[in-house]
Amino acid sequence: MKYYLILFITLLVSSSAFAQKKDMMVRLAEIEIDPHYLEEYTTILKEESRASVEIEPGVIAIFPMAQRENPTQLRLLELYADRQAYEQHLKTPHFQKYKTSTLKMVKSLKLVEMDALDAATMPLLFRKLKQ
Amino acid sequence: MKYYLILFITLLVSSSAFAQKKDMMVRLAEIEIDPHYLEEYTTILKEESRASVEIEPGVIAIFPMAQRENPTQLRLLELYADRQAYEQHLKTPHFQKYKTSTLKMVKSLKLVEMDALDAATMPLLFRKLKQ
Repeated sequence: MKYYLILFITLLVSSSAFAQKKDMMVRLAEIEIDPHYLEEYTTILKEESRASVEIEPGVIAIFPMAQRENPTQLRLLELYADRQAYEQHLKTPHFQKYKTSTLKMVKSLKLVEMDALDAATMPLLFRKLKQ
Repeated sequence: MKYYLILFITLLVSSSAFAQKKDMMVRLAEIEIDPHYLEEYTTILKEESRASVEIEPGVIAIFPMAQRENPTQLRLLELYADRQAYEQHLKTPHFQKYKTSTLKMVKSLKLVEMDALDAATMPLLFRKLKQ
């Protein structure tokens, strides 16, 4: 009896974790920065990404990259628990500070919504990044 | 004395881990798939991504995504320990199988080398994906 109870709870927890993964919002932001502001922008963006992941439970990951051949072309992989977590993120003081202070530095911005091809095994694909 | 030895070993291990992170190869592959083959391609790609991360210690992560508005446009975030790990990956049977069996399905392929903006705290940015 105890065994079945444990099995039931395990299935419940697994299915709720899976449900969360299905709702996950995946985005690839394409940002071009005015070269005059690149260093300043990068500093502000790094602070904002770290703060978001540290403070907000619904911000799963923000991973900023620059194209090696064209370093003013940035790409950000953003993972949010769900759309609500993203809407919440937009209202935080650290995001608001980032947004207002970098407005003049951004030449173009494209927010591309993505779907993970393999949502079910996503954590496995990143498990080696554990610290 | 024992304390200093432990401290020394810890610093040694941390600095080698940091060195590895500095060498890390980050890539964003831009792939367009012939719509007739999309399902078939996706199945093969998922298998290949999982096998690479599972079998190869130097393949840190492969994360395949599709643009929601244009699902034949795929983007792959690829993280390799270093260039040697990537060269090794190209020689594996699972990569070779993927490459030959999907050749006719790929309409265009662009391999864009990236730099992580915040290499030092990268694992922290992904820590919530732990399972």
